[in-house]
Amino acid sequence: MLKRYFPILEWSKGYDRATLTDDLVAAVIVTIMLIPQSLAYALLAGLPPEMGLYAAILPLLAYALFGNSRTLAVGPVAVVSLMTAAVVGEMALQGTAEYAAMAIALAMISGVILLVMGLFRLGFLANFLSHPVISGFMIAATLIIATSQVKHIFGISASGSNLIALVGSLAENMASINLITLTLGVAAIGLLYWARRGMKPILVQFGVDEKLAGILSKTGPILVVVLTTAVTWALNLADKGVSVVGALPSGFPPFATPTFDIEIWGQLFGSAVLISIVGFVESISVAQTLAAKRRQRISPDQELVGLGAANIAAAFSGGYPVTGGLSRSMVNFDSGAKTPAAGAFTAIGVLTAAIFLTPLLYFLPKATLAAIIIVAVVSLLNLGTLKQTWQYSRTDFAAMAATIILTLAFGVELGIMAGVGVSIFLHLYRTSRPHSAIVGQVPGTEHFRNVNRHEVIVTPEIFTIRIDESLYFPNARFLEDTIYDAVASNNQIEHVVLMCSAVNFIDASALESLEAINERLGHSDVMLHLSEVKGPVMDRLKRSHFLEHLSGRVYLTQFDAVHTINPHVANRAMEMSRVE
Amino acid sequence: MLKRYFPILEWSKGYDRATLTDDLVAAVIVTIMLIPQSLAYALLAGLPPEMGLYAAILPLLAYALFGNSRTLAVGPVAVVSLMTAAVVGEMALQGTAEYAAMAIALAMISGVILLVMGLFRLGFLANFLSHPVISGFMIAATLIIATSQVKHIFGISASGSNLIALVGSLAENMASINLITLTLGVAAIGLLYWARRGMKPILVQFGVDEKLAGILSKTGPILVVVLTTAVTWALNLADKGVSVVGALPSGFPPFATPTFDIEIWGQLFGSAVLISIVGFVESISVAQTLAAKRRQRISPDQELVGLGAANIAAAFSGGYPVTGGLSRSMVNFDSGAKTPAAGAFTAIGVLTAAIFLTPLLYFLPKATLAAIIIVAVVSLLNLGTLKQTWQYSRTDFAAMAATIILTLAFGVELGIMAGVGVSIFLHLYRTSRPHSAIVGQVPGTEHFRNVNRHEVIVTPEIFTIRIDESLYFPNARFLEDTIYDAVASNNQIEHVVLMCSAVNFIDASALESLEAINERLGHSDVMLHLSEVKGPVMDRLKRSHFLEHLSGRVYLTQFDAVHTINPHVANRAMEMSRVE
Repeated sequence: MLKRYFPILEWSKGYDRATLTDDLVAAVIVTIMLIPQSLAYALLAGLPPEMGLYAAILPLLAYALFGNSRTLAVGPVAVVSLMTAAVVGEMALQGTAEYAAMAIALAMISGVILLVMGLFRLGFLANFLSHPVISGFMIAATLIIATSQVKHIFGISASGSNLIALVGSLAENMASINLITLTLGVAAIGLLYWARRGMKPILVQFGVDEKLAGILSKTGPILVVVLTTAVTWALNLADKGVSVVGALPSGFPPFATPTFDIEIWGQLFGSAVLISIVGFVESISVAQTLAAKRRQRISPDQELVGLGAANIAAAFSGGYPVTGGLSRSMVNFDSGAKTPAAGAFTAIGVLTAAIFLTPLLYFLPKATLAAIIIVAVVSLLNLGTLKQTWQYSRTDFAAMAATIILTLAFGVELGIMAGVGVSIFLHLYRTSRPHSAIVGQVPGTEHFRNVNRHEVIVTPEIFTIRIDESLYFPNARFLEDTIYDAVASNNQIEHVVLMCSAVNFIDASALESLEAINERLGHSDVMLHLSEVKGPVMDRLKRSHFLEHLSGRVYLTQFDAVHTINPHVANRAMEMSRVE
Repeated sequence: MLKRYFPILEWSKGYDRATLTDDLVAAVIVTIMLIPQSLAYALLAGLPPEMGLYAAILPLLAYALFGNSRTLAVGPVAVVSLMTAAVVGEMALQGTAEYAAMAIALAMISGVILLVMGLFRLGFLANFLSHPVISGFMIAATLIIATSQVKHIFGISASGSNLIALVGSLAENMASINLITLTLGVAAIGLLYWARRGMKPILVQFGVDEKLAGILSKTGPILVVVLTTAVTWALNLADKGVSVVGALPSGFPPFATPTFDIEIWGQLFGSAVLISIVGFVESISVAQTLAAKRRQRISPDQELVGLGAANIAAAFSGGYPVTGGLSRSMVNFDSGAKTPAAGAFTAIGVLTAAIFLTPLLYFLPKATLAAIIIVAVVSLLNLGTLKQTWQYSRTDFAAMAATIILTLAFGVELGIMAGVGVSIFLHLYRTSRPHSAIVGQVPGTEHFRNVNRHEVIVTPEIFTIRIDESLYFPNARFLEDTIYDAVASNNQIEHVVLMCSAVNFIDASALESLEAINERLGHSDVMLHLSEVKGPVMDRLKRSHFLEHLSGRVYLTQFDAVHTINPHVANRAMEMSRVE
C-alpha cells in the first residue's frame, strides 16, 4: 500500500554501487542539457532565467520520491512554458513581480489538479485529448514558439499570443533589427544543428566510442552557451546592442509560499486544467515508451501523483509549471539511468549551477537561448503526421486541421479547447450515421451477409438489417429513420429482424427508439425481431419492459430467425449450394 | 424534385369530397382545442393573448404547404412557450413592445435555423439531445410551467425563471392572495380534470357514440373558458380583483417585418438553436408515431423545412415560436384528419375567432388560462420514466437527474445545455473503460471465450484480449494500459493477440496507440497479432503503415492465430473434448 504512493520504497531496495554509477553518469549528461534549456524555457515563459533553474531543482527531487517512471526527466518544457506565457500574459505584465507570482500560482494549482486527478483516478480525462488534437496542437505550438523567439534572433521586440499577432508585431519592428545579434543568433542556430547532425560522425572518426559520441552530440547547447557568452564578453557585444541575460541571483532557490487567493485560483483554474492535461499526456507517453523498453510497469494514476508533487514543489521554490520532457528523458535513458535517483542527482547538478555558475551567465546572449528553443522545438516538428492522418481518416484530419488553424489564429488555450470540441463532435457525427447493411442468407450456409457485397438470398417479407455500431443516443434516430423508410417504401415487408452481432451496448435513448420502432411497426402489422444479441446487452434488456412489448422474438442466430419465420426459404437457401 | 420540397403537390392529387369532409371535421375539433390553448400559451410566454392566436394562423398554412406529416398540428406549445419566456425575459421587460418584438425575432431566427438545418440535412444535430436529457428536461419544464401558473390561480404576482426563484417569489407574495380568483381557478382545474376523466363515461351512458364522446371530452378547455368568462361577466368579478384578459385587438394578424438587427440576432442565436432543436425533437417524434399508423413516410429533413416555414410565417404575422404539438396532433389524427388541409382549415377557424370572437374574451379570467396550462402539462408528466431509466442504466439516469436538477435550479437553457454536456461526457466515460475479456479456447471447438465465464484452455505465452467496443480516442489509452499491465506483470507472455471481433472502427488515436503498443511490445520481445478484424476496419488499416510495422500477423480467426503461433496447444484443445 505504502509502496503504491511511494515508489521510492520499491526501487531503493536493491540500490548498489553499479546502479549508482549508472545514475550519476546519466545525471551529469542530463544536467548539461538541462541548464541551458531551463534558462531558455523560462525566457519562453516570459520569466526571469533563474526561475527556469529553480523549476529544475526541487521538482526533480519531488518526482524522484513520488513518480513511478524510472527514467522520466522532469523539468521545464517548451509547450508548457508557452502555455504558461499565454495564460499569465493575459493577467499580468511580463517582467513584473505579479507576472512571476501568477506563474508560481499556476504551478501550485496545476500541481493540486494533477494530485487530485491521481488520487481520484481521473486520468481518463486525458482521453478527451484525441491524438489528432494533440498532434495538431503540438505542430501549431511549435510554430508559435519558434516565431515567438525570432525577435531575440533579430534583436527586436515583438509580442502576441497567436501566430498572426506575432508575425504582425515582428514585421512592424523589423526596422530596429540589430545585425550583431542576428549574426550571433544565426551562428548559434547553425552550431546547434551541426552539433545534432555533424558532430557525432566527426567524433566517431576521431575514435570516440559510438555511444559516447551520440551522448556528446547532445551537449551542443552548453557548448553554444559557453562560446557565445565568451564572444559577447570578449568583444563587449552587450554595449553594442546585444541583449544579454544580465545579473542573476546566486544561491538556493527561494522557499516561498504561493498565493492562495481564491479569486486568482478561480481565474487560473481552467487554464491550469489544460496545462496539467497537456503536460500529463506528453509525460505519460514518454514514460510508457521508456518503461516498455525494460518491461517495467507505469501506473498512470501514480504518474499523476508524481507530476502533481513536482509542480507543487516548483510552486514552493519559485519555479513554474513542469512536466516530463521528451528529449531529456530519452537522453537520461540512453545515458544509462536506472532509477529516479538520477533525477535527484540532476537536481543537485542544477543546484550547483544556481549557486556557483550564475555570475558566469551575465553575458549569455538572449539570442543564444532563443536559438536553443528554436532548434529544440523545430526538431520535434512532425509534419508527416498530417499526411498520415489525411490518408487514414478524413474525420481525424479535420479535427487536426481545426486544432492547428484555431491554435495559430487564436492561441493555445482556445485552440486546444476547440480541438477537443471538434473531435468529440466529429466522433458523435460519425457514430450518428453508422455503417449498416441489409443482409441475406449466403446459399448453402447459415451465414448472412450484406446484400450489396455478396450473392445472397432474401425474402421480400423479411427485412434484416445489421447495424455495425453500438446503439446509443447519437444513432438512435438513424435506426428509426432507416427502418421506417424501408417499411414505408416496401409494402411486402411483414418482419423486420435487427441483427445485433456488432452491438456492444444499447443505451436508454436507443432502447426508447427500439420501443418506438416496435410500437410503430405494430401499427403497420409488421413484427420486430432481434437476432444475435450479445450476453451483456441481453442482460440489460431484461431489466426493461422492452422484451415484454416486443411483437416478435429474440433469436440466438440470424439463421434461427429466418428459419423460424419462414422455414421454407431458409431451407431452400441451405439446399441451393448442394444442388449447384 | 419539386414534390420533395412541396409535399402539397403529392397529397393534393387525390383530394376528393370524402377527404374534405374528414379534414373539415378534424379541423373544427382542433380549432376548439387550439383557441384556448393558444391564448394560454401566449400568457405562459409572457406575451399578449392575441399573439397566441396569430401564432396559430399563418404558421399552420405554411406548414400545410411545406410540412410532410399529414396530421401534425402545428402551433404554440407549452415547452417552447416557456423557453421563449426564459430567453426573452432576460433581454426585455415583460409587457413591453420590445419584449413582443424579441419573441417575434426569436420565431424568425428559429425559422431560419430550422430551414437551414433542413436544406443542409443537419437534422442529426437533434441526436445530441439524448432521450434521458429530453425526458428529464420535459419533467423539469413541466414543473416550472405548472409552478409559474400558480400565481394566476392565487391572483398574486410572482416571477422567476427557475423553480427556486418561482417558489420564493410565490411565498413572498402569498399575503395578497385573491380568494375569488383562487375559487375560480380551482374550479377550472377541477372541471378540466373532470372533462378529461369523467365526461366521456357519462356521455357514453347518455347514448353518445364512444368515439364522439372521446373527442367531445377534449373540448373541456373551451367549455371552461365559456363558463368562467360568463361567470366573471355576470358577477362582475373583474371589479373584485379577478384578473381578466381584457381588450384584445380584433381582425387579421398584422403583417409585420421582424427585426434583422445583427446584434439582436447574435444575442438570440444560441437560444434559438436550443428552441429549434427541442421543438423539432418533440415534433418529429409525434409525426413519426402518427405516420407509422398509416404506413406513411416522414422525411426528418423536410420536417425541418416545414417547421422552419411555420416559424418564419409566425414571425411575419406577429406570432412567436411554434412547433408540432403532441396532444393536438393526436386529436387531429383521431378525429380523422387525412391531409395537411385539415391544418389549413384549422387556421381559418382560428382566424375567424381572431376576427369575431376577441370581444367576447374580454372577461376571460387569466386564472382559467393558467388552469388550462396546468392541466395540459401535468397530464403529460411521465415520472415512470425515472424509475425505468434507473433500472435500465445508471449512466442514463445520471444524465436525466442532472438535467432535471440543473433545469429546476438554473432554468431551461442552462439545464438543457448541461444535460447535453453530461450525456456526452458520460458516454465518453463509459466507452473509455470498455468491456474487455481475456479469452481462451473452449475445449473441442474453435471458439474462444472469456476466461472468467467459461472453462477454457489458455497458454501462458499467448495473451489474447477481446475489446468489446470500437477503438477510438476515449478508450485508446485504456487499451495501452491494459496490455502493458498484462505484459509487465507476466514474464511468460511472448505473444499478444488482440481479438477484434467487436471492433467496428479504429480511429487515428487508437491507431497511434496500436503503433505504440506494437513498438513497445517489440522492445520487450513480445509480438503483437490481430485476429478477426472486420472488412471495413482492415481496409482502413491498409491505408496506414501499421500493418508494415506490425511485429506479428493478422489472422482471419482467433483459432488460426493460436494454431499458427502454437499448433500443439490449439490441437490439444481441439482433441480434449473427443477424449472426455
